[in-house]
Amino acid sequence: MTTVPSSDILDRFAAIVGDRNAVRDAAEMAPRLVENRGLYRGASPLLLKPGSVEEVSAILQFASETGTPIVPQTGNTGLVGGQTPRAGGTDIILSLERMNRIRDIDPVANIIVADAGCILDDIHKAADSVERMFPLSLGSQGSCRIGGNLATNAGGTAVLAYGNMRQLCLGLEVVLPTGEIWNGLRRLKKDNTGYDLRDLFIGSEGTLGIITGAVLKLFPKPLGHQVAFAGLTSTEDALKLFEMASNLCGTALTGFELMPRIGVEFTARHIPGVRDPLEQPHDWYALIDISTSDSAETADTMMQLLLERGFEAGLVEDAVIAASEAQRQALWHMRESMSDAQKPEGGSIKHDVSVPVSRIPEFMATAEKAVLAAIPGARVCAFGHLGDGNIHYNISQPVGADKAQFLARWRDMNEIVHGIVLSLGGSISAEHGIGQLKRDELAAIRPGIEMELMRRIKHAFDPAGIMNPGKVLAE
Amino acid sequence: MTTVPSSDILDRFAAIVGDRNAVRDAAEMAPRLVENRGLYRGASPLLLKPGSVEEVSAILQFASETGTPIVPQTGNTGLVGGQTPRAGGTDIILSLERMNRIRDIDPVANIIVADAGCILDDIHKAADSVERMFPLSLGSQGSCRIGGNLATNAGGTAVLAYGNMRQLCLGLEVVLPTGEIWNGLRRLKKDNTGYDLRDLFIGSEGTLGIITGAVLKLFPKPLGHQVAFAGLTSTEDALKLFEMASNLCGTALTGFELMPRIGVEFTARHIPGVRDPLEQPHDWYALIDISTSDSAETADTMMQLLLERGFEAGLVEDAVIAASEAQRQALWHMRESMSDAQKPEGGSIKHDVSVPVSRIPEFMATAEKAVLAAIPGARVCAFGHLGDGNIHYNISQPVGADKAQFLARWRDMNEIVHGIVLSLGGSISAEHGIGQLKRDELAAIRPGIEMELMRRIKHAFDPAGIMNPGKVLAE
Repeated sequence: MTTVPSSDILDRFAAIVGDRNAVRDAAEMAPRLVENRGLYRGASPLLLKPGSVEEVSAILQFASETGTPIVPQTGNTGLVGGQTPRAGGTDIILSLERMNRIRDIDPVANIIVADAGCILDDIHKAADSVERMFPLSLGSQGSCRIGGNLATNAGGTAVLAYGNMRQLCLGLEVVLPTGEIWNGLRRLKKDNTGYDLRDLFIGSEGTLGIITGAVLKLFPKPLGHQVAFAGLTSTEDALKLFEMASNLCGTALTGFELMPRIGVEFTARHIPGVRDPLEQPHDWYALIDISTSDSAETADTMMQLLLERGFEAGLVEDAVIAASEAQRQALWHMRESMSDAQKPEGGSIKHDVSVPVSRIPEFMATAEKAVLAAIPGARVCAFGHLGDGNIHYNISQPVGADKAQFLARWRDMNEIVHGIVLSLGGSISAEHGIGQLKRDELAAIRPGIEMELMRRIKHAFDPAGIMNPGKVLAE
Repeated sequence: MTTVPSSDILDRFAAIVGDRNAVRDAAEMAPRLVENRGLYRGASPLLLKPGSVEEVSAILQFASETGTPIVPQTGNTGLVGGQTPRAGGTDIILSLERMNRIRDIDPVANIIVADAGCILDDIHKAADSVERMFPLSLGSQGSCRIGGNLATNAGGTAVLAYGNMRQLCLGLEVVLPTGEIWNGLRRLKKDNTGYDLRDLFIGSEGTLGIITGAVLKLFPKPLGHQVAFAGLTSTEDALKLFEMASNLCGTALTGFELMPRIGVEFTARHIPGVRDPLEQPHDWYALIDISTSDSAETADTMMQLLLERGFEAGLVEDAVIAASEAQRQALWHMRESMSDAQKPEGGSIKHDVSVPVSRIPEFMATAEKAVLAAIPGARVCAFGHLGDGNIHYNISQPVGADKAQFLARWRDMNEIVHGIVLSLGGSISAEHGIGQLKRDELAAIRPGIEMELMRRIKHAFDPAGIMNPGKVLAE
């Protein structure tokens, strides 16, 4: 049992960063104690804002010595409670927000070296300033920070062509729970020298150490970019169209998002400026994004060819190609507002799942049947990254139903949806991670040996058990 | 100290696989005891050829119980002695050659599931049979096997566009040193559920467990493919041309190989059928490979445009574009024979290093100066994957020098070349791994905390210390 740190211990933590950067004020602390959607609320006696790697190191060393739990936090945009302190008031929050310096940028080597506290948008801007781009693209990019992106192996809409955060990172600097600093800030594309510690820290949600800096990959800006929006009859046709697009475009296919009719209705109804771009309603929609490096014309030609072939094959009922950058943005805005558009429709039970791409139609059909059998009238608004097999399987309450009563079925729905996902060889957390939300479920579904290996790694890296306890693994 | 296993213990190991698959005959064993280049020779009392995951499991469980060291082996093509048993005759060789079944192939999901004993070429053929391709391309692909490719995180010539083996693998099946089987054969592109055990096993060179099966990614076959060979003045110009090619081609740039004049001379002199494709000699050469998904014409147009721009910018002195598939293969054959072409020139001291791409010219100039100062007349034949920052820094002996005396300078040369590599933030093993060859050097150059974390992981996974002891980490 961890106890609340004494005021003497708190004072000594505060002295490491200086009083100005040690927050105990309840009002200032309040937003740090609650998860984005309000699913988790915690308590904490102290928020520390170190300004250097050395200060992070001193904090963790003292935490290991005193057995004080530390919760790392960057943009506080996570969706599984990984960044939220536990309720007991024992956990000190360590915020990396002051460590937001871009250390180096090299457009020839296509590399940027950044503090973990940099905001994702600032990385985009820095890359843009040297005619490069950093592909990670998330709804929260104005506030999420690189450290959290790495800790959760963030995904988003550009994964199809560029990969997750894991694929976008070459090197890390990590402060270990003991306070030791691992300088793994390598800038190498190829380096086969020993165990892959980098990928062990990426996605470990702050339970093995605190990422303080990273070497990230940059890419040439595509010259051509085109977006289309196609109305389809079924998820089977969407899969066939995706396969056609993959074959035709190869790595130029930079997005293939699936949306249901109800999602388009919700956005048209609730999101200012959004309207259905097609004349007739369709059961399903695909947003197709193509980026080409050689010329702007290629993207356009490729998109037209794809849609022509889609029509000929009877896969596409109707489609529109963006005629301007503003229209391209408008189509993406519709897709990105799909989660927000559900809020005015009442309670929403959410799942972030993946299945093998080829099994998406089977998953969608089976899950909808099971959900409607359990809650007649529930409105399934399942959308997402078809090309990655990643569906945000959201369920809006029946019209007129009681919100609280509906949300009380969260675990029932999880059991139904995750059960189907697992039977298809899928994942219960495609991109959001485990945190607190899926911790016990993970332990229940994974083979014992896998949890055992994770526990052994945790113990080997964090013998005092101070790093973000209760997240990913049970305490 | 490990002792040679008793004949009773050997019999019990043999009983697990059956006598037909337990080899003790010296002649049959001999080729398994020596590394490819003859750098390492070992001894072993027994070679086991299990036919199933269960048999591998039974072997490792009994090995852990009896403290018997196990050396996993697949194609025996590794270059750092990782697959060679130690000299003491204590180590049992476990060969995966009988486990060579393709378990599943799914061209819609772009996935192949294979036993670890499958030969790389057989994976290529299986992919081809469903109109897909598996990009890993190595000189040894006719004999190397998937298990070894994964254990060493193999690279090769297609890394620029498709990544190392790590990027080509979605899931693994691993038998742990205790005999427990971890089924991590996931087929998912996105799965953020706990620590990344997969990437920990990949590249761990058989020291944490034995990979018995894998889910690998397939890709659509490119429709267009073009290869050019360009004569250049300097490595600085080669770097500028690479940057130009990256900007123009984006992900369609599937190869950018650097070669020195002496390498072209060696291949023209010693490799049957190879001739210098350009009329005049040039100090440096680039082999450029472009693959496009939309049409064959695009690759051709892109290549012509790149070379035109290269001429205009004064980067390219002369160039030839392949006019047929046979010519494309001939250009690649020259590049791939560069290592073999050095053999008739006497002793060769080799390095497999990487530096940040932007520092290749600096590395090449500094290293050549230092090498020639140490061994006047030495002939530096440094070539490789410029686009990955990975150079095979090979040094042929001075003409007429004594081969043995030259090779006795191996460690001197390592110190010089690796010293420069490290001063530039590079890696002493870009793609071949650590094995026995670079084990002590790794420990000498890496921060203590990094080696300590690796030892803790090793101990957590292999408490009895039976898995490929003495490789990567000291016993």
